[in-house]
Amino acid sequence: MLPRDVVPLPSHLYPPEPWRIVERRFDASHLDRAETIFSQGNGFVGFRGTFEEGRPSVSPGTFVNGFHETWPIHHAEEAYGLARTGQTIVNVPDATVLELYVDDEPLYLPTARLPAYERVLDMRDGVLSRQLEWSTPSGKHVHVSTRRLVSFEHRHLVAIEYEVELTDRAPVWLVSKVVNRQDAEVTSHTESGEQALADPRLARSFRDRVLNTRVRQVDGHRLCLGYETSRSRMTLGLGVDHVVETDNEHEITYSQEEDVERMAVMVDAQPGVPIRITKYVTYQSSRDVPPGELVARCQRTLDRAVRDGFGALCEQQRGHLDHFWDRADVQVDVGEQTASVQQAVRWNLFQLAQASWRAEGTGVPAKGLTGQAYEGHYFWDTEIYILPFLTYTQPRIARNLLRFRHSMLGHARRRAQQLGNDGALFPWRTINGEEASAYYQAGTAQYHIDADIIYALRRYVEVRGDPEFHLEVGAEMLVETARLWADLGFFDSRGSFHIHAVTGPDEYTTVVDDNAFTNLMARFNLRYSASVLRGLERDRPDGFRALESTVKLGADEVAEWERAAEAMHIPYDDDLGIHPQDARFLEREPWDLKATTPDRFPLLLHYHPLVIYRYQVIKQADVVLALFLLSDEFSREQKARDFAYYDPMTTGDSSLSAAVQSIVAAETGHEDKAREYFEYALMMDLADLAGNASEGVHVAAAGGVWQALVFGFGGVRDAGGDLSFDPHLPDGWERLSFPLRFQGRQLRIHLEAQREVYLLESGEPLEVSVRGALHTLSEGEPLEVSVRGALHTLSEGEPLEWSTAGE
Amino acid sequence: MLPRDVVPLPSHLYPPEPWRIVERRFDASHLDRAETIFSQGNGFVGFRGTFEEGRPSVSPGTFVNGFHETWPIHHAEEAYGLARTGQTIVNVPDATVLELYVDDEPLYLPTARLPAYERVLDMRDGVLSRQLEWSTPSGKHVHVSTRRLVSFEHRHLVAIEYEVELTDRAPVWLVSKVVNRQDAEVTSHTESGEQALADPRLARSFRDRVLNTRVRQVDGHRLCLGYETSRSRMTLGLGVDHVVETDNEHEITYSQEEDVERMAVMVDAQPGVPIRITKYVTYQSSRDVPPGELVARCQRTLDRAVRDGFGALCEQQRGHLDHFWDRADVQVDVGEQTASVQQAVRWNLFQLAQASWRAEGTGVPAKGLTGQAYEGHYFWDTEIYILPFLTYTQPRIARNLLRFRHSMLGHARRRAQQLGNDGALFPWRTINGEEASAYYQAGTAQYHIDADIIYALRRYVEVRGDPEFHLEVGAEMLVETARLWADLGFFDSRGSFHIHAVTGPDEYTTVVDDNAFTNLMARFNLRYSASVLRGLERDRPDGFRALESTVKLGADEVAEWERAAEAMHIPYDDDLGIHPQDARFLEREPWDLKATTPDRFPLLLHYHPLVIYRYQVIKQADVVLALFLLSDEFSREQKARDFAYYDPMTTGDSSLSAAVQSIVAAETGHEDKAREYFEYALMMDLADLAGNASEGVHVAAAGGVWQALVFGFGGVRDAGGDLSFDPHLPDGWERLSFPLRFQGRQLRIHLEAQREVYLLESGEPLEVSVRGALHTLSEGEPLEVSVRGALHTLSEGEPLEWSTAGE
Repeated sequence: MLPRDVVPLPSHLYPPEPWRIVERRFDASHLDRAETIFSQGNGFVGFRGTFEEGRPSVSPGTFVNGFHETWPIHHAEEAYGLARTGQTIVNVPDATVLELYVDDEPLYLPTARLPAYERVLDMRDGVLSRQLEWSTPSGKHVHVSTRRLVSFEHRHLVAIEYEVELTDRAPVWLVSKVVNRQDAEVTSHTESGEQALADPRLARSFRDRVLNTRVRQVDGHRLCLGYETSRSRMTLGLGVDHVVETDNEHEITYSQEEDVERMAVMVDAQPGVPIRITKYVTYQSSRDVPPGELVARCQRTLDRAVRDGFGALCEQQRGHLDHFWDRADVQVDVGEQTASVQQAVRWNLFQLAQASWRAEGTGVPAKGLTGQAYEGHYFWDTEIYILPFLTYTQPRIARNLLRFRHSMLGHARRRAQQLGNDGALFPWRTINGEEASAYYQAGTAQYHIDADIIYALRRYVEVRGDPEFHLEVGAEMLVETARLWADLGFFDSRGSFHIHAVTGPDEYTTVVDDNAFTNLMARFNLRYSASVLRGLERDRPDGFRALESTVKLGADEVAEWERAAEAMHIPYDDDLGIHPQDARFLEREPWDLKATTPDRFPLLLHYHPLVIYRYQVIKQADVVLALFLLSDEFSREQKARDFAYYDPMTTGDSSLSAAVQSIVAAETGHEDKAREYFEYALMMDLADLAGNASEGVHVAAAGGVWQALVFGFGGVRDAGGDLSFDPHLPDGWERLSFPLRFQGRQLRIHLEAQREVYLLESGEPLEVSVRGALHTLSEGEPLEVSVRGALHTLSEGEPLEWSTAGE
Repeated sequence: MLPRDVVPLPSHLYPPEPWRIVERRFDASHLDRAETIFSQGNGFVGFRGTFEEGRPSVSPGTFVNGFHETWPIHHAEEAYGLARTGQTIVNVPDATVLELYVDDEPLYLPTARLPAYERVLDMRDGVLSRQLEWSTPSGKHVHVSTRRLVSFEHRHLVAIEYEVELTDRAPVWLVSKVVNRQDAEVTSHTESGEQALADPRLARSFRDRVLNTRVRQVDGHRLCLGYETSRSRMTLGLGVDHVVETDNEHEITYSQEEDVERMAVMVDAQPGVPIRITKYVTYQSSRDVPPGELVARCQRTLDRAVRDGFGALCEQQRGHLDHFWDRADVQVDVGEQTASVQQAVRWNLFQLAQASWRAEGTGVPAKGLTGQAYEGHYFWDTEIYILPFLTYTQPRIARNLLRFRHSMLGHARRRAQQLGNDGALFPWRTINGEEASAYYQAGTAQYHIDADIIYALRRYVEVRGDPEFHLEVGAEMLVETARLWADLGFFDSRGSFHIHAVTGPDEYTTVVDDNAFTNLMARFNLRYSASVLRGLERDRPDGFRALESTVKLGADEVAEWERAAEAMHIPYDDDLGIHPQDARFLEREPWDLKATTPDRFPLLLHYHPLVIYRYQVIKQADVVLALFLLSDEFSREQKARDFAYYDPMTTGDSSLSAAVQSIVAAETGHEDKAREYFEYALMMDLADLAGNASEGVHVAAAGGVWQALVFGFGGVRDAGGDLSFDPHLPDGWERLSFPLRFQGRQLRIHLEAQREVYLLESGEPLEVSVRGALHTLSEGEPLEVSVRGALHTLSEGEPLEWSTAGE
């Protein structure tokens, strides 16, 4: 069903502008959400959109991807094999703070008189800037201008520029701080009351101190700190340098107390003489490098940053984003609301860039680096919701993320063994590779993660055209996941292959038999593993033999996978003509969603699991997700029946649901639903539709927005490495354009209600299918398709002008 | 299947004596088990069989039934409605300690030279005594004689007598202590390593101090202490008085330090002049009475105890036990091993007395008062495993326990509401009435507890003949439980009534649909509730109307229960001719128990729950338990098929299993299995067959021993309040005799291989069924039945001599 309380195209706080998010006034009541909306990051380091002045702030946070503390998971009742190692991303010392005092009065936005105020996230520049006029209580007029960025060019670098100019003479203090607030954060979390306590999605807080200072170096305007965590023994380096530029007389002092470092610039400010501080901040983290060595690396980064200056960083930033938007920008014309929709589309895509651009040797946390919810863990979100976007726009990053998954294989092998199985079982949630899901029913039991990873691997290899990747790392994962499935399931007496006691994507039923999604994806996994291995054996015998000995492949093993795949039981109900979500799903009593008042959602916060499990009610797309992922395995009629059955009972209590419902709605002719689901996903954070935007960006939902546009409305599919298009533009949409990288080629797709243009911008000719008909695209020769009702014929159209990101 | 490693009639450490457990030497390697075997208690207060000297001890423990501390249950991952209040019975201050020093050398059993040693638990006297000769390092010869008891007559009273006599002159110290060791205990528990950590059956230890001293009074030889717990705010009074008797010169001193109170008697001991200290100890506990008031009660108890003296206590104790054994003793003649079996039978029955005799206003903890495992919680053990014995031997206690259940009804109503249901859901485990099961899958999900309670209620009312009990408290429980079932289940489109997402007795599958046991018991519950209510409406209209308004009975409600009961879906497989344990049970893969090595049991400590749940493998009797409880609902052929199917996959990893398997094995003609299962249950603790006797007595298994004897071999049934006998004496058993209270009458049953005698010792004539034939028993006129193969005819036999407990 449609998510609750959704008005047509929900609106948000920020005026519609295609490339910018602009906050026109300070608004205390939306502070928490704004801290998420204005978050910045580059996939390695990120922080929330708190103000430079440090206060007021609701949930300040600075995060380094993968930098986490561990803790023993205490289960209220123990059992064998439960996850033991909790992992939580650390809120690292915050270096964004720059306090301003005029006449010893602090600039404090909630009470300050602000004749002018504007905060702007510019998604082309990748810079967050703020301009404000402050009339102080003593009658002085102060102009404050700040800019900050997390560099896409320099993975470890953050830069902040803070400029002050007065129209009157006054004493001014500018205080730059480094605040280690992760330990102080604990109380607010644990005291946040019953509701928060009962919300399993929030991060855990620590009882004991996490960061221990091992190195502290002060040298001129530069401060370097080296830390080590108490339990995970990870190390962190932090360097801060300041460039002070002013013609005013000024003096600089330093002070330090526990957890706060201060550099204060005392200025005798003259009218019209600006004061500018540029603060360069760099973070390094490691599992084994000593803090002193990390600090040395920080020093070198700072040297370079100071030498190049803020302007150079801005130019590089723009260059990266030009490249990003050229490959990723999706342009829409939806009539009246175009600016608003376009803005939201770009904000979502921009979040994907910020979450992944420099995610090298790490995964993508569920909230990117914009919040501590879900503890900074990596889930299947990466493979199923984010990698499709990256594969089609920045395959380099997709490759990095898949290599990172492969690096967890050792842990995954050990986990499978603990669970009594051959092969490898990837963790449902993790940072360091060990399973961290404390509720195994909706955690470890989600075996489908194995197939999800292989699905992303398959798409990467086929869409990028990188079969070598299999010999590098892919095939090893193919073997170990296929092994798991073959061992996990069993043949019944009638020869069918079953997989029991697993949980599918829908967490409103857990530990079920023959979850349709799981069995379908496992079958895909087994078949794909077998086919790649047979291909390697045939075409790359040397590589195959090397692999064979690495993974100790049994003589009959591949054939065994094929047998399991062919015998896989896929639940099907002949009467209803649908795929039951699991062996017992249709036996459950329907939940009366119409009688459930809006305040009872999400159900998980208002009903005992036993109650939820007893009903036909769904947290998120499950069978429907399979219809999309394994699109070529179902007829359109089948999809329509399954969608019609499941859609009304799908609460969308998970943020992962709406985009998938949108895609399948589009394909099955539910145009309105497709658009409404899309709008829900699109506005989830900007309009805070799920009510928890304050906790961080729903990064997977952002990936879902791109998929709803490209796979849903654009109708793009790539089964077997063959690109096909079957667009379903929503009624009233004038235009949808998007680029695609495909096997080394650059494609640009331009869809209108009446006509479609498929352009191969660069690369070798490519055969594609458009609405079922095969065409060969050649470089620079747009294929134009005119769409009239059900008839699709080629026609000679005037050449299109392609808008590009840089325009 | 038969429990692992079971040798024919496992032997234990103690020489076979029909009425006593005798320890002939100090044996450090069996210390932990002996602390359980020699435990003492009266159902209100109890302690483990540690030595008077206090050391060595493995798990010293003193417990007051129901006196518990609460703590917030922290779930590793939160969800709505999970149990929030942990409850753990408190290890209260230990007053059993009396240290002996001769020439300043302590008596320390592990190193002492002991020319003579004997410790005896006398099950007729209810006294634990010890006699030893100690040759001290300095060459002195010391005779030490101790006796102690937990009074059956005085609920709050414990008495300990310690007598020393030397053959040489020597300075002697006797130090009487009160040790508050519950707080110190914590460390040993939490440091007990991975294995212990992963064992969900052990008690939780506290982080913070539990007992706070509120009152301390010292007066002469008497010490009184009043405590309050930190969180549950329960109060405890403890009084200790000493009577010192000796003709030796002596001097008494007192000292106190945190958590230890000492009274030391310094004696200039002359040869042959005994020193005797009698220590009277009394405990009081409350939820709301101030500690000072409890201390005043302790004073009065001590006054009386000191006045009467130890001898009088011993006499009263024997009087109670004579009464107990007269009503409860089961006598066997099994040939060669009679003494051993008889001893073990009595030890088990004695444990039932010790666990329940003065359980007034409390339940019976899973371990009685012999250990802290299972946290002192009350489970269904009481209703299904212990109440049958009490109902047939001491119905007064059965009534108290059922009244105690009723006192939890308010909590049970609130819990049902939390779970979204009408009626009442009793807690799976609790002390104070609130659900305390931290793993809801094998806790709260065991809805069958409601029907288990009603089953015990039905039996009590019918066997005692106490229909008034329904008007007093029973009917209210009948209404609320029937309501729960009617609301929990639902009618499917074909009109069948289903109950989903529940867990049956077998915890090796959880959260299943249509668990056969649950549905059968729910049907029983619905039917019985309806029939009692219709009976009240007809025969006791005043009482019915009062009830109707108390519970707000709906006009159609009783009819609704009847409809649900009649439509109840009972899983049945036509091909196999058996009752599947649940809707999916037969679809599961069989577990290869033959290939599972003994060190992998119990499975729950060696396999992840997801693995166990995936297979046809059973922790304990589930369907088989229903075959026994609802015996009249199944034909013998049906029972035989079900038993044959389930027995081979039943691990017996639960101590509740063996007795039930034995009973159904006996009924279905598996004579050897019936005996072997019985012997396993019989020797579980004495021979430590489950490997955890050290944690406390398996009280439910002890109840199972009685049931296996009476319901299994004796073939007693009481469906509908009609008493019937269908004995199945194991091959080689010469005799089995037992008394039964039935509807105000005293029966004595005497079974031999060839002849059976049924005697109504007192009371009105009674119609009984013997092997299917109806007979009327009249007072003092034994009915003798001669058994020859399948033919059972009456014959005139010589009168039997009835052995009685007092012989």
